[in-house]
Amino acid sequence: MAEGEVRPNKKVVLRNYVDGFPKESDMKVVTDTVRLQVPHESTAVIVKNLYLSCDPYMRVRMSRPDQSIEFPSFVLGSQVVTGYGVAKVVVSGHKDFKVGDLVLGITGWEEYSLISDPNSLIKINHPELPLSYYTGILGMSGMTAYIGFYEICAPKKGEFVFVSAASGAVGQLVGQFAKLTGCYVVGSAGSDEKVNLLKEKFDFDDAFNYKKEEDLNAALKRCFPEGIDIYFENVGGAMLDAVLLNIRNLGRIAACGMVSQYNLEKPEGVHNLINIVLKRVRMEGFVPKDHCSKYRKFEEMVVQHLKSGNITYVEDIAEGLESAPTALVGLFNGKNVGKQLVVIARE
Amino acid sequence: MAEGEVRPNKKVVLRNYVDGFPKESDMKVVTDTVRLQVPHESTAVIVKNLYLSCDPYMRVRMSRPDQSIEFPSFVLGSQVVTGYGVAKVVVSGHKDFKVGDLVLGITGWEEYSLISDPNSLIKINHPELPLSYYTGILGMSGMTAYIGFYEICAPKKGEFVFVSAASGAVGQLVGQFAKLTGCYVVGSAGSDEKVNLLKEKFDFDDAFNYKKEEDLNAALKRCFPEGIDIYFENVGGAMLDAVLLNIRNLGRIAACGMVSQYNLEKPEGVHNLINIVLKRVRMEGFVPKDHCSKYRKFEEMVVQHLKSGNITYVEDIAEGLESAPTALVGLFNGKNVGKQLVVIARE
Repeated sequence: MAEGEVRPNKKVVLRNYVDGFPKESDMKVVTDTVRLQVPHESTAVIVKNLYLSCDPYMRVRMSRPDQSIEFPSFVLGSQVVTGYGVAKVVVSGHKDFKVGDLVLGITGWEEYSLISDPNSLIKINHPELPLSYYTGILGMSGMTAYIGFYEICAPKKGEFVFVSAASGAVGQLVGQFAKLTGCYVVGSAGSDEKVNLLKEKFDFDDAFNYKKEEDLNAALKRCFPEGIDIYFENVGGAMLDAVLLNIRNLGRIAACGMVSQYNLEKPEGVHNLINIVLKRVRMEGFVPKDHCSKYRKFEEMVVQHLKSGNITYVEDIAEGLESAPTALVGLFNGKNVGKQLVVIARE
Repeated sequence: MAEGEVRPNKKVVLRNYVDGFPKESDMKVVTDTVRLQVPHESTAVIVKNLYLSCDPYMRVRMSRPDQSIEFPSFVLGSQVVTGYGVAKVVVSGHKDFKVGDLVLGITGWEEYSLISDPNSLIKINHPELPLSYYTGILGMSGMTAYIGFYEICAPKKGEFVFVSAASGAVGQLVGQFAKLTGCYVVGSAGSDEKVNLLKEKFDFDDAFNYKKEEDLNAALKRCFPEGIDIYFENVGGAMLDAVLLNIRNLGRIAACGMVSQYNLEKPEGVHNLINIVLKRVRMEGFVPKDHCSKYRKFEEMVVQHLKSGNITYVEDIAEGLESAPTALVGLFNGKNVGKQLVVIARE
């Protein structure tokens, strides 16, 4: 491609703000154009987007604007939806990036994106692994698991670990980290297929299908007769309430998401918070972005484990930008098995 | 008094387990006897109790037994209610304690107590201050404020601090610590008299009577237009829910009690926990007992501030063991102004 060339640029935009569960029709794919040129004297780059990450937090950005600085609402209409993705630099105004560099970072849900501040991009160090891994296990999902488990939960060998949404992009890795640490780990998921995956593929000690449990407290008591030391919280609501009834003294709860609550008009009430006092529990919300300096350490650790076969990984890949709205919406119905991502182009 | 002598020993016992709000009639004062002698070859001591601390957590111990190891239920009938108190050693089988030593620790709500393990007692280093202070500002209430504020909340100058139950034993000290740190501090309390105390005596920047506020969220928005960095949580329930709507990024919540919830059959639901994720908030339960090694450092700091007049302290003193049940019950109706304690004897 020639610098300065004008190309068609398909992109996903938000048509309206979302109440309740998002639908495919809340988004649409439109065709715009892009000039493959960065503004004069700018340090911007233009990237060709390859793989897009579908993440539950994006639901928060689909709601009507409030004062949130961390998760600002998407702009309706012509402005593209953004999220983490893997991309290739095709035009560069920045001395640290050259054409052909593979990068990970916040990009647009479109074929080509102008990245005004390339300093936010991370260069991909291991292109010998599947590039798509950098949307998940080697990207923000992986960092979420790594920071949440090792930094926030400070696990010790022999501790009892519970992971909700355990077959998802973050949960599957948390479970494997827990096993590598010598913990006992149980996961919950929303289908028998996923439960099997947890036990057979990801080496969880036990797992249950929360949709088949009449009483989540009883399910946790069955799986953890001695209680829970660490809860990796991905769902919130009733599951959190049940965990609080089973948490042990000095328990830790790492909270990176509460996906069960994003689509509710009024969030469920959590009644058992008194156990945070009685059991001296620490519950901590976090985003991997606050821990960027640890990315390379995390990347090298996971790459080694992937290469040696100690860690495995399951992806759910949607083909083509047109399939992106469906893929994102599917997250909230639990349709995906493993990390949900969209491939726009493979190189 | 002569060692070996048998004396009458009035004590407070629990008549029945409590549902809902405790009443005076849930307890009674009975007269037993005590022999002023420790068992042969034991290292026990006998103490004469001087001041008893009334603490909200005691309500948890008045409930029907469950599996709680940290807060075991009191035994009904003849066994004395226990809690923190200030006492004087009158018989000693322990080499580190001599007759006349003044101590702080868990003792019985009675005139004389046998302390089987005196290693749990802390010697009082500053008898030049009012001894009663060691039930509160120099005792576990003070340690709760100190550990919760400095260790759990890690405050920085200029941060916005909110304290609930702010005129109580813990809250009044948290507010003063916050001012000494250069924070902006607002307290809530349950009467106009207490609100005045916060503003006039304890130097809070602002305060409000939560019973007069129709909308706690609006009250907090009025007091904290820029939001809350630190919440010192003493009450739980609706107040916690409102704080979660006003917490800032990287906010911290130190939870040492949820007194609004202790007397409810079904605790209130807290709906806004998603903000723990969105704002990366840390909420941490703690008990001062886990931090005993810091007691002397805390004691010296507070003693210096008391002597220099930088810190002030308000007590609500009930006279005589007979008044102890009323004093304890009063905590849950907000009757006390400042630290509630009971004096049994002054020396």
